[in-house]
Parts: sequence; C-alpha cells; structure tokens
Amino acid sequence: MQLALSTWQEIEAYLEHSTGIIIPIGSTEQHGPNGLIGTDAICPTRISAGIEEQADILIAPTINYGMAQHHMAFAGTVTLRPSTLIQLVTDVITSLQQHGFTHFYFINGHGGNIPPVTTAFCEIYHAAGKSVGPAPRCRLANWWRNDHITALAAELYGDAEGHHATVSEVALSYFAHPEAVKNVSMSPDIAPNGEIYDAADYRLKFPDGRIGSNPALATVADGERFYQLAVDALLADYKTFISGAS
Amino acid sequence: MQLALSTWQEIEAYLEHSTGIIIPIGSTEQHGPNGLIGTDAICPTRISAGIEEQADILIAPTINYGMAQHHMAFAGTVTLRPSTLIQLVTDVITSLQQHGFTHFYFINGHGGNIPPVTTAFCEIYHAAGKSVGPAPRCRLANWWRNDHITALAAELYGDAEGHHATVSEVALSYFAHPEAVKNVSMSPDIAPNGEIYDAADYRLKFPDGRIGSNPALATVADGERFYQLAVDALLADYKTFISGAS
Amino acid sequence: MQLALSTWQEIEAYLEHSTGIIIPIGSTEQHGPNGLIGTDAICPTRISAGIEEQADILIAPTINYGMAQHHMAFAGTVTLRPSTLIQLVTDVITSLQQHGFTHFYFINGHGGNIPPVTTAFCEIYHAAGKSVGPAPRCRLANWWRNDHITALAAELYGDAEGHHATVSEVALSYFAHPEAVKNVSMSPDIAPNGEIYDAADYRLKFPDGRIGSNPALATVADGERFYQLAVDALLADYKTFISGAS
Amino acid sequence: MQLALSTWQEIEAYLEHSTGIIIPIGSTEQHGPNGLIGTDAICPTRISAGIEEQADILIAPTINYGMAQHHMAFAGTVTLRPSTLIQLVTDVITSLQQHGFTHFYFINGHGGNIPPVTTAFCEIYHAAGKSVGPAPRCRLANWWRNDHITALAAELYGDAEGHHATVSEVALSYFAHPEAVKNVSMSPDIAPNGEIYDAADYRLKFPDGRIGSNPALATVADGERFYQLAVDALLADYKTFISGAS
Amino acid sequence: MQLALSTWQEIEAYLEHSTGIIIPIGSTEQHGPNGLIGTDAICPTRISAGIEEQADILIAPTINYGMAQHHMAFAGTVTLRPSTLIQLVTDVITSLQQHGFTHFYFINGHGGNIPPVTTAFCEIYHAAGKSVGPAPRCRLANWWRNDHITALAAELYGDAEGHHATVSEVALSYFAHPEAVKNVSMSPDIAPNGEIYDAADYRLKFPDGRIGSNPALATVADGERFYQLAVDALLADYKTFISGAS
Amino acid sequence: MQLALSTWQEIEAYLEHSTGIIIPIGSTEQHGPNGLIGTDAICPTRISAGIEEQADILIAPTINYGMAQHHMAFAGTVTLRPSTLIQLVTDVITSLQQHGFTHFYFINGHGGNIPPVTTAFCEIYHAAGKSVGPAPRCRLANWWRNDHITALAAELYGDAEGHHATVSEVALSYFAHPEAVKNVSMSPDIAPNGEIYDAADYRLKFPDGRIGSNPALATVADGERFYQLAVDALLADYKTFISGAS
Repeated sequence: MQLALSTWQEIEAYLEHSTGIIIPIGSTEQHGPNGLIGTDAICPTRISAGIEEQADILIAPTINYGMAQHHMAFAGTVTLRPSTLIQLVTDVITSLQQHGFTHFYFINGHGGNIPPVTTAFCEIYHAAGKSVGPAPRCRLANWWRNDHITALAAELYGDAEGHHATVSEVALSYFAHPEAVKNVSMSPDIAPNGEIYDAADYRLKFPDGRIGSNPALATVADGERFYQLAVDALLADYKTFISGAS
Repeated sequence: MQLALSTWQEIEAYLEHSTGIIIPIGSTEQHGPNGLIGTDAICPTRISAGIEEQADILIAPTINYGMAQHHMAFAGTVTLRPSTLIQLVTDVITSLQQHGFTHFYFINGHGGNIPPVTTAFCEIYHAAGKSVGPAPRCRLANWWRNDHITALAAELYGDAEGHHATVSEVALSYFAHPEAVKNVSMSPDIAPNGEIYDAADYRLKFPDGRIGSNPALATVADGERFYQLAVDALLADYKTFISGAS
Repeated sequence: MQLALSTWQEIEAYLEHSTGIIIPIGSTEQHGPNGLIGTDAICPTRISAGIEEQADILIAPTINYGMAQHHMAFAGTVTLRPSTLIQLVTDVITSLQQHGFTHFYFINGHGGNIPPVTTAFCEIYHAAGKSVGPAPRCRLANWWRNDHITALAAELYGDAEGHHATVSEVALSYFAHPEAVKNVSMSPDIAPNGEIYDAADYRLKFPDGRIGSNPALATVADGERFYQLAVDALLADYKTFISGAS
Repeated sequence: MQLALSTWQEIEAYLEHSTGIIIPIGSTEQHGPNGLIGTDAICPTRISAGIEEQADILIAPTINYGMAQHHMAFAGTVTLRPSTLIQLVTDVITSLQQHGFTHFYFINGHGGNIPPVTTAFCEIYHAAGKSVGPAPRCRLANWWRNDHITALAAELYGDAEGHHATVSEVALSYFAHPEAVKNVSMSPDIAPNGEIYDAADYRLKFPDGRIGSNPALATVADGERFYQLAVDALLADYKTFISGAS
Repeated sequence: MQLALSTWQEIEAYLEHSTGIIIPIGSTEQHGPNGLIGTDAICPTRISAGIEEQADILIAPTINYGMAQHHMAFAGTVTLRPSTLIQLVTDVITSLQQHGFTHFYFINGHGGNIPPVTTAFCEIYHAAGKSVGPAPRCRLANWWRNDHITALAAELYGDAEGHHATVSEVALSYFAHPEAVKNVSMSPDIAPNGEIYDAADYRLKFPDGRIGSNPALATVADGERFYQLAVDALLADYKTFISGAS
Repeated sequence: MQLALSTWQEIEAYLEHSTGIIIPIGSTEQHGPNGLIGTDAICPTRISAGIEEQADILIAPTINYGMAQHHMAFAGTVTLRPSTLIQLVTDVITSLQQHGFTHFYFINGHGGNIPPVTTAFCEIYHAAGKSVGPAPRCRLANWWRNDHITALAAELYGDAEGHHATVSEVALSYFAHPEAVKNVSMSPDIAPNGEIYDAADYRLKFPDGRIGSNPALATVADGERFYQLAVDALLADYKTFISGAS
C-alpha cells in the first residue's frame, strides 16, 4: 500500500489494523563512472515496493535527498546540511505520530545518512518524554548492512565489492532501472580504499568517485538477487520490529 | 534527462551547454475522498517527465514532502515545519550552485509551499550578496496557476473545479496513475468554500477535505489534456526564464 | 486605542469586549529618489491611526523593519533575514495570545514581507494544533492591494503608478509627513519595469530604485485620498474578519 | 536626520561625513497602573529626537519590541524570545554595515534588553573576525543608567524612584505624550521591592506591576528635566564613542 | 557532594532534602603571559569544591567552555557562539528540572559569559510560563564581583589588580594548581586599560592579553586568601538564595 | 600538556611542532547502582592524562555533558539536545582551527555521543569546502571499542561485561577515583539486555539502569589494566591519525 496512492480514508482504515510504516530514504550523489546519481534513493524505493507486494504494509514517499557532503566535489551531488536532514526526518515522524502511527521503519540507502537520522530519532525520543500517547519506535534499516547481502556480494565479487559505488548497489539500481545501465570503462579496475574526510580530499583520493569497488561487474541479473535478498531480510526485520519483540 | 538516472560525468557534460535545472516539488497530504495523498508530488513529477521528453532539460528528483499544516486533521498528511522546508530548498539550490547551476526552476504542485519556497529564494538571494560567482535565478512555477489550465478547467467543470482537491489536479494524477483511480461517492456534490486557518478549523469547515470542488468528475482523459497543456506552458516559461528574457 | 499609550489595566478592560488587534508592519528601505526610506512603515502606521479614530480598535506598535533583501544595494536599506522576521511575527502573536487575543490583523506596507509573514502564520497555526484555547486567526492586509486603491491610482496616474516607489505610496507618506516632501528630478520620467531577483541585479536594472513609477507626481492632497480610501476599506475588512464571517 | 524620512541618496551623502547611527530600542510591556505600555520605546525615541535637534546625527526607526518575559502576566505585554531579539539586532547592524556604517549606538529603554542586545554585539564581533572591512563598534546606552539622571531622580523622589515603572521613566513618557497622562490611585504608595524571576512569580510579588516606585509622582514638567539631562548626557557619550576615544 | 562521583540513587536521596545545585561555569581563554588558559574554569571549580567541603551541597561537573570571542586573537582560546552557550546552559537546567531540582546556582569565572547565561535564564523563565511544576530559580554568581574580594584585591594590589588576567584570578588559579605557576617577565608592569570590542581590536590594544593588571604579583598564598573569601561569600549567598529570602 | 594549564604563548610554541589536539568528551548520566554519574567523562579524562604523560600532545578541557536522553528517567542525568551538542563540538573545533590546529582527536566515553559528534564533523567538513586554509581532520575515538579492551573484558567477565554500566568502564572510573568506589548489592547479578528507545521505556526494561552487566565485579586493579590498554591503543591510533597515514 503506497501512501502516495491512497486516500486519507484508506489510511484511517489501515491504522485500525497497523500503526507501522516504512519510509524509504536515499541521497542524490555521485556513484562513480557507471553508477546512477539516484542509486541510494532508487534501491530503498525498489526494495520497499517489493515488500509492499508481499505484505499489507504502508510505504511512504521516498526522501530523495540526504547528507552527501563528502561527494560534493562531483557534479550533480546534492547535500542537505545535517541539521536540515535532522529536521526533515523529525517532521515526517512527528506528523505521522499525530495520526496514530507508532512504528517508523526507515529503509536507508546511504551511509552518510546514519548519523543525522539517528540523531533525529534522539530528538523524537527527547520530545516523547514530554508528551502523552504511545511512545514512538524508530529503526534505521541500512539495506546493505545485512549478512545475506554481504555474503552474496563476497561470493560474487570478493574484494571488488568495495565501499562506495559498490557492485551490489549499482547492480540493484540497474535491476530497478534497466533502461539506465551504463557501459563505461574504468581504470584501475578496482578503485583505491581510504578514509573519508571532506569533499576536496575525497576527490583527491578517489578521483572517479568509487571507493574500493569495480562496479563494471554489476548486472541486472545480480541486482535482482540482491533485491530479493533485501526484500526478504527487511520484511522479516520489520515484522520483528513491529511485534515489539526487540 | 533525469538527474537520478545520470552519472556525475554526464552532469558535467550537461553543464557545458546549460546551467538550468527543473526541480519538482510536491506535498504529501489529503486530497478529499477520491484524491490521492500524493497528488501534489505526482502532478509536477509527471509534468517534468513530459517536459524532459520534449527538450534536453535536466530534471532533479522530486521533493515529496511540503508544508501542509492545514491538512493535518486528515490521516496520512505529512507536513514539514515552514522552517524545515525553507532549509531544504535552500540546501538543494546551494548544492547545485556549487557545480555551476545558475537557474533553478521549481515546478510546484501545492499552494501551501508558496510562502516557504519564496522565502527560501530570498535566503538564496541574501547569501548571493555575500559571495562571488554568477547570481542565482530562482522561479516557482505553480502548474495550475496558468491561463490555459484555468480556462480548460472553467470550460470543463465551471464552479465544480474548486480550490482544494480540484477536479483538474485529481484528473492529472489519475492520468499519471490510472491504476489508482478511485470511485467514491461524495456529498454534497460540490464541497463548501471558505478561508483556511488552522487544521482543526479546516476539518470543521471542510469535513471530507475538499474545498469547493467535485472531483468525482475527474477522468484520466481529462487529466491527459491538463497534462499536455501544463507541459507546453511550463516548457515555454522555462525557456523564457533560462534565456534571461524576464 | 494605542497599545503603547495604554496601561495594562486598560488592556484588560479592552479584552472584555474585543479580542482583536491591528499590528502595522513595514520596512526600512529605499523608495527611489524622492520616496522616504520609512514609506512602508509610515503608511500602515498612518492608516492604523485613521482606523483608530473611527472605531474602538486596539493598535499595536509598528514593526518598523521587514524583509528588504532586494533593496540592499541602496544606502540606508535595512533587511531582516526571512527567518528573523518569521520569528519576530510569531513572538508578537504568541505573546498576545497569552493575554486572550484571538484575531491578529496585520496592516502591511511592503510586498517583500508577504512570504515570511504568511509563513509565520503557518507556524502559529502549527503550534495551535498542539495547544488548548481558542484557535488564532491571522490576516495580512496589504493596504495597496485593494480595488479602491488600484482604481484611484489608475485614474490618477495610469501607467506611471508603477510597482516600487509607486506614486500612491509616496503620496500617502507625504500626507503623513508633509515636512518631508522632496523635490527631486528623475530621469526617465517613468522608471523601467522587470522581474526582481537579488540586490545587485536590482540596482543594475533599476538604477535609481524605482520600478515602473513616476513618483514625482505624488502630492499631499492625493495622499490624503489614498489614506481615506485605505482607512475605509481596511476598517470594513477588519470588521468582517473579527466577526468570523470569512 | 531621521532615516525613515530620508531618501537613499541623502543617506549616501550622510555617509560621506559620518558612519555613525543611533538606534532607539524599547519594549512593549506593562508599566504599572499609570505607566504606559510603550514607555520603554517612547523614552529612547523622544531622547533620540532631541539629540537629532542638536546635532547632525542619523536616527534609525525605533525597535518597538524587546525582551519582556517577566512582565507577561500583565495584559498587553509583548515579549520576543531572547534568540529573536538577538537575531533582530544582529540583522539591523549587519544591514547597515553593508552600506558603510561602522558605529552603532543603541539608546535603550529597557533593562531586560541588556543581555540579549549585548549578546548580539558578541555575534557581530564574532562575524567581524571572519570578514574584511572596518571593524564594527557597538554600544548599548541605557538612558536611565546615568549619574545625572540618577542624581535628579534621587533628589526629586528619594526612595520612591523605584526599579520598574520608575517615576523618572513615567515622567519622561508623559513629557513625550502629555495627552496620555493617567490619574490612577495606587496602593501602597511605594510598591514592594524584590528580585525578578519568572512571570508568575513577578505578578505574585508585584501585583500591580510596579517595583519599588511611586509613579503617581510623575509629572510632565519633571519629565522634561529628565529628557533634557538624557539628551545632553547621551549626545556627549555618542560623540566620545564616535571619535574612538574609548 | 559531587554529581560526577555519585550514583543516581544517591541523587534521589539528595533530592529528598534539597532541590538546589551549584554549577561551575568557566571559559577556555588566554589570561596574559603568566595566566592559565583554564583560569576561568579552574577558579569556580576550586571554589565549588571548597563549598562542598563545608556543606551538603551538590556540585555539578564544570562547564569548561564559555563565550570568549574577544580573546580569539590569542592562541589556545576557545569560544562558543553566544547561541551555543545559551542552548547549553538551557539544556543543563532543563534536564535537572526533570528530576525535581528547582534552584540553579551558577558560579561563574568569566565576565563574557554574563550576557548569554543571563539570556539562558530568560529562556528558562519563558518556558516555565508554559509548563507545570515548581518555577525554577536561577542565579549567576560571579565570584570576583564581591565586596570582600574587591576589597582584598584593592588592599593588596591597588590599581594593578586590573580587568583581565587580574592578579586575584591568577593568584586563585595558582592556589588551585601550584604545579602550573609561571614566571614570565611582562612589560609594561601594568597593562593598558580600554574598552573591549572585537578580537582584532583587542589584540591591538592589549598586545599581551592583559587589561590593566600586573599578574606578576600573583602568589599561591594570596590565591588561598581569595579562595577562602569566595567560598565564604558564595556559600552565604547560596544559602540565602535557596531559602527563597531573595 | 594541558591546554587549561598553559599560557597562550606556550600554545603558540606548541603549534610550531604540532597542529593536533586531543579533546576528551563525556556525559553526565546514570551508570547503575554502583557506577558513577560522571563515568563517561572520567574515563576519557583519565586516559587523556595518561597519554599526556607519555607524549608531548596537547589535551583540551573535557566536555563534561553529552547526549544522554535515554537515561533521563534516572535522577542526576543531564542531557544536551543533539543540536546543542552538535553546535558545541562545532564551535570548539572552529575556534581551534583559527589558531592553526588541523587534527582534532576526540576521546569519547559515551555511545550516545556518536551520532551528534559525527554529525558535527560533517558540519565541519561542509564549512571547510567554503573556506581557505588546510582542511581539518576529525576522529572520534571511542575508548571501549577496541580489540584490546573488548578482549580483556571478555576474558575477565564474559557475558557479565554488558552494554551499559559495563564492568570495564566502572572499573576504569574506580581506578581514576578510588575514593568513590561503591559497594551496592544488585539483583539480578547480570542485568537484562534489550534495545534502547526512549527514556520511559528504558527505565521499564532496565529498572536499575544497567544493561546486561554485573558491575559489582569492577575493581580498581582491573580498572588500571583497562586504563593502560586504552592509553597504549589510543596513543598509537592518534599517532597514525596525525601522520596522515589513514
């Protein structure tokens, strides 16, 4: 069930049997020579759609912009200041709380979002201490941080999976948008590794945007396998979350 | 050309011949008994896609959440605080400025966004006074405020077009998502009119969410006509804007 | 009744028969070669004083500074950041709400204030959703956007009325401050028209500050006519507003 | 020379011989049974006008609202949050700096403004460390904290001068607005003294709003004496300030 | 009793007989050629420890960073923006209020903290007007602004006491940290006096950081005398404060 | 070398051979029945002092307050809002950058600080993109997340180490403050485990404050072992960091 394609009366009906919601959150940032700038929003959006096909769970519209400061030396990247993202996430949760939602499950496509989104959850819990009504429960599910996903990536690509513009995420985005598959030659095959600081330093260390990966290996067929694994793992995790078992 | 489906190197190439970009901005809010909660994001997204089919113009990912405080008494509505939306829009523009973009054309689906987005433009112009580089140009194009659109709506629906959950916007969203067309009976046929204050007052005055409209009249076929008119009108306006003629 | 010239006990008495208040809001910004920098505060202040002479309505002290970013390339202009003005207006309303005021009628002299003040109203309505007590009602009355005013200006000046440093506002300010009437030659007679972006662009397009106007036509006698029309129109609108009829 | 009654070209001319400006700042708050709610804005405004009569000094429009939280239990009081006042003062100074002003002399009517305005000065000095151009100089002149003023008040009223709704300030406001003189009986003659905490506590300790004063003694004639002393003292202090001698 | 060395259950027990707490607040800033950068935190921390030895009073951890903008031209100085310090102090008080504390006694070592900390108290009183529970009471005790302290300093050093990097504060910090006593020659013996504006101006006027003082006179023995006087005076003042007598 | 015990001239000298600094950051929050409220500040402070004994590294004053929202249902806990902590950390770094420091190594004692401090680093990198001078490098070293530390804790306590009020941190704080060792009986021996949400939920799940630990096992002797391991590991990590090797 898509929030964007529902009426308010349908949401009222949904709230009678569930107060949980899934919110995809991404980023708009460079993903190397053949990765899509929308990768981090595309993956959570597609995974959420897959979950929706399997279960009666409400999916909110995707938050398309995230915290991508370290990618700003590459054209097309958009970054929110951390404080903006904190407020954005806080407002989305706060609004839904007013209608009776209690469990907020964010499916995240971008590592850089983790500190500000987690900080937003703290703000929500902080506010909860001063108000009445059921306490909110928030979880940030980073789709790629998952035993199943990392095992498959290791099996398929070994060290070439990498840390940014990874083969798995590029593959999953290709599965979601086969019309946008790019054939681009890259050199070296596997990009260098290193620690991330500011944007200028990033470009110096990682001149084509990739970190430690060889996304030329990404295929639509592999993308479908990652997609399926992610749908299964996150659906199971959502059910545990919503049941209050953890 | 979709920013989300491009690589950073493709954006670098685009910037060599154009520094303009279209950014669809919507809202996630009730649209009456048969209107979609995503209407205000769906319409600008679909219109932008139509423009992209006709011209080599870059389209950014849609800002799906807006300022919808007055709809908060209806389930499923999400509102950003005005200050959050101001910061969000400011950050998106500021990021793109760093890459060399100069003309920011927002296609907007929601009246409530006008004050905060216009305020964000003021913040951008304020900051421009203190920095170097070409001055930014921002425009907020509200797709439904358009002689062609209002004329067609008047011709087709007369007084039943209304002011919220209008027939034209519901029709356009149905054209974009025919799988989500709803058949819902409403009473009275035409919703009451009145001034908007806070959320509780809104619900009292407009109990099913509509203002002055009869969206039961909305059809996919009509939606396509509004869509086509909007694409033509906004594409022409964008070209004038980017040329610096006004 | 002037809030500034009353005691707190007189305000307590006033609140027993009315919970409405008028708040003049202006700006401190250039108004061309013969227009006063205080024009936008002077006009609402004078109009409010005229309303007070005719009816038992409380008038708050004038907010003398507004959002005037686009005039910053002319000496003497002062601008608040939009966020500052939003907070200022919010605080004034919030304070008065605590004493029992419910209807806040701002008489505005400056177009640039419209987005931030309207945004402040949204913040007020947003907060109202979380508190008890009667819901606030806010209205922004732009004195010059008025059928009577625009008709008289068209009759007297035709195209020379213009869009900034208009003849009507300069005339009204001269009526309020005849000691400050200036005789300054301007060239061309009627200033150029165009769209407003940032401050540097404004100065380039409108080198003496006027937009589309010939304020050399302004006289004290005309100013009195505009003043009288504005007092009548806004008093009537205030009465409708306070009665809850719209 | 009043900023509000000048044109931008007159300000340009003023800047050629002086880069100093006087900014009156007040508050809108209860002043006991016979004191005017506008007292703290009226006094600095009137004193500034007196200074202007004696010297070619530019006077900005009055900031009519201040930080008056502790008076909020009395009808008609308006308070800005401290953060709002800090931003407001910061914006006024920052705007004027852009035109070349360097010396900002605030004539203040309200003790509660001292912490936030002084804090705003710190923000200005903080920003100055990061920008080019002449460093700003800010001074907050509290008109009543003055050897001449306190000596005269002691001579005329002894202990009845008090600490809020003082005889001297009520007298000065009566001199400025003789049409608003109030005859109100008060009991006890001299109000109690004590420390100020929050608004509810204030009302409990000082039930009619006065602290330690007997403003029934205030007369227009005395007000004129305070006015004259204040004009002389602050004009002298301004001249020292602007000369850079301290 | 040190908050940092207690358990939560011990604090629960403390709250049964007292709801007052002492919070030392300092700054990290230059104190001339022989003064310690931590002077303003060291003095309140040591005085608080002395008070704790004499009475069953809870001492919170020291706030080590303050508002020191004007010292930023000297290496090692750290300044919080005023807004940050306001929020920090507000959060500390607000947290302790939730546990039942009502009296917040800040022992301050730095003049520059006075405006923002006093502003924070206003924010606290502002918030108190909207919540339930006992009203908070806040006091800022500047240890050096004290008849006993100033008398002893005058007696020992006369004019050489000065205004920044004063002999008394350097002496007290030496008493607290005899291992850090420095022997540094300074010239002139007594530093110049003057008014404080921004950081660059400060360094120009006061090239070694001192204002009006000769801290070469500071000794551990004198420091102990100041320490003892401060402990006695502030303990007495705290007792009056907590009793509600003022 | 302690910043607090140095003069500004000594810091100038230090900057000639190093531009790195260590900043201990803690929290003031409950640590179960026998753990100190200051544990999270005490541990980094003591470890930093140990590092200082072994190498010429500058240590800043400790940030004693952190983000501890989830502990607020236990008396004595103080929490900063995440936004406050972000600003505080940002200001400390920004100030030190002005003097020429480039490497900021935070030794952290509290898991709840990780999201806001990491967010602050993003803000710093964001600002770095707009300014000149050497780019800053920031690292957050969580002393307890360390192979050596976790191995020793596992060896000594197995499952009783736990997740809050862990045996290792209580032991290290006892080593730093043997005078504050507490003997308190706890039941059950090992506290329950679970996920952390808001403060009320925390108290419900973990009624005495501990999570999964049995801190009754903590001894001063063990504390010294953890201390020594932490000093060695963090000193080595600091050296790698400062050398730019990672």
